[in-house]
Amino acid sequence: MLLSTLYIVGITAEAMTGALAAGRRNMDWFGVMLVASCTAIGGGTVRDILLGHYPLGWVANPHYLVIVCLAGIVTTWMASWVARNHKLFIWLDSLGLIAFSIIGCRVGMDMGLSPLIAVVSAVVTGVFGGLLRDLLCRRQPMVLHKELYASIAFFSGWMYWGLMTYGGQFGVNENYATLSTLILGFTFRMCAVKFHWRLPVFSLAEEEKTEDNAEVKVS
Amino acid sequence: MLLSTLYIVGITAEAMTGALAAGRRNMDWFGVMLVASCTAIGGGTVRDILLGHYPLGWVANPHYLVIVCLAGIVTTWMASWVARNHKLFIWLDSLGLIAFSIIGCRVGMDMGLSPLIAVVSAVVTGVFGGLLRDLLCRRQPMVLHKELYASIAFFSGWMYWGLMTYGGQFGVNENYATLSTLILGFTFRMCAVKFHWRLPVFSLAEEEKTEDNAEVKVS
Amino acid sequence: MLLSTLYIVGITAEAMTGALAAGRRNMDWFGVMLVASCTAIGGGTVRDILLGHYPLGWVANPHYLVIVCLAGIVTTWMASWVARNHKLFIWLDSLGLIAFSIIGCRVGMDMGLSPLIAVVSAVVTGVFGGLLRDLLCRRQPMVLHKELYASIAFFSGWMYWGLMTYGGQFGVNENYATLSTLILGFTFRMCAVKFHWRLPVFSLAEEEKTEDNAEVKVS
Repeated sequence: MLLSTLYIVGITAEAMTGALAAGRRNMDWFGVMLVASCTAIGGGTVRDILLGHYPLGWVANPHYLVIVCLAGIVTTWMASWVARNHKLFIWLDSLGLIAFSIIGCRVGMDMGLSPLIAVVSAVVTGVFGGLLRDLLCRRQPMVLHKELYASIAFFSGWMYWGLMTYGGQFGVNENYATLSTLILGFTFRMCAVKFHWRLPVFSLAEEEKTEDNAEVKVS
Repeated sequence: MLLSTLYIVGITAEAMTGALAAGRRNMDWFGVMLVASCTAIGGGTVRDILLGHYPLGWVANPHYLVIVCLAGIVTTWMASWVARNHKLFIWLDSLGLIAFSIIGCRVGMDMGLSPLIAVVSAVVTGVFGGLLRDLLCRRQPMVLHKELYASIAFFSGWMYWGLMTYGGQFGVNENYATLSTLILGFTFRMCAVKFHWRLPVFSLAEEEKTEDNAEVKVS
Repeated sequence: MLLSTLYIVGITAEAMTGALAAGRRNMDWFGVMLVASCTAIGGGTVRDILLGHYPLGWVANPHYLVIVCLAGIVTTWMASWVARNHKLFIWLDSLGLIAFSIIGCRVGMDMGLSPLIAVVSAVVTGVFGGLLRDLLCRRQPMVLHKELYASIAFFSGWMYWGLMTYGGQFGVNENYATLSTLILGFTFRMCAVKFHWRLPVFSLAEEEKTEDNAEVKVS
């Protein structure tokens, strides 16, 4: 219940970031709805395709698709309001990220997959929507550069998996596992944004770049 | 019968536009065949993957793949002829679009999906080939900017669905539904091209863009 | 046995080329692991999704994913060593290409698909990893321009298929088919690199380009 509320908050917020990205590329309404949909439900779709988990969520529940397209179109009317309230969006987007990760992890666990794959499923659900948005809008995928994002999906996935697997003997039930993952993951993400925590970046220096280009030319 | 003839016309025309796009990027023959295939049968492939509708069309009928690759290679020999006859191509491409949409809608209906998803299936079938072509050739996806295209797939999908679902009581059979969708959809597309009908475009003004960039940096 | 050793060599080499490409785009560690994974196991993943061959290899055997991510991270520490030894990489990458093609062809044959689709499965397995890498790193896909690459996967696929299908009556067993495809394919690839064998390139001349742009604007 809590999770499905958060899921709807999450897809709405993600759809709005998708619509803004589409607006920066001067797309038409169809483009806005396409990018909004891919951003909001692309992560879950890629996860379900990778795991062979059919039917996809939005095929079984088409109203998610309607919500997402509407959110995209509404964003075109209130872009300046959205831009002024970007702090709110960081919050909603972060809540959505953790909710997506928990849902992804659960899908993997319900399918009886190994713990690592359940956590990969969490990361894919949390991250691929934004990746698809950036590919469609032809910009450098943000998730690969900026403050911790995929790492938080990874952390939330492991935490939820751990609480669900080993928490039972300490009286941890499902709601408790969900809620504590949400709170800790959200706090972690807010700290990452505030203090600009990042993963180490791998930059090839110019000299090496030249050599590598040589390498790449022939490989 | 009519539909499968139109399907072959459609994939051939789409393969040729794919090959031309590949030629603009100086690709080799493999690239030409790859882009031609993705353009021509990519839409149906994405639809079948999203709906879990296996085996894919071209896996079951490999001769479609042969037709498409041949069309791509033949295009490299007659590029200037193709360029001179671009009006013909707009016609063939439009016929293909409507045929793809009808086929996509039928696949969704045969799988017993909800009307909205059947129409989404029509749009995906009609539109994703061109999207993949533009992603592979690294250009701004045309379908998100130009004259009505996805909207016509959407319209054709609903029309076909309506005629098939409610037409029976008025004596509308399948052939009639197919033919009238084809004629109306084609006319609609030709008008859109001639009169430059477009969906409203969502452009973020420069001022908002700057603010949004700030938003995006942290989200 | 031989094949699975070569498979691990192949995915390791591919993961390293992926990590180098990510480094050229200044990605963080998550980006490096993502690009490394897509490069190394993306080809097999795309093949399995297209053929509906579930569960995916890395879902059933998560340790492949661990190897690939580790190879990506290790590459960030030894980028200059890798750059200095690029010849070694061309060898490993070529061995991997042939191993991937043989595995892809076998998957198609085990599923009872038609010969053409089995060979397409070989090409997809060999080629799509590099394609995904180049899409994620937003550069022109190399496989569509450079020395014979997909063609060698195509050749290896047909050779393996032929030896497995018709070789039995001449006493050709599976190991022999694998080994001879490896040797011939590898030699072919090395020659292609050394003598710059390429497929014919399809370049639209400037004049035609202008006309085609007109065509494309309306199509």
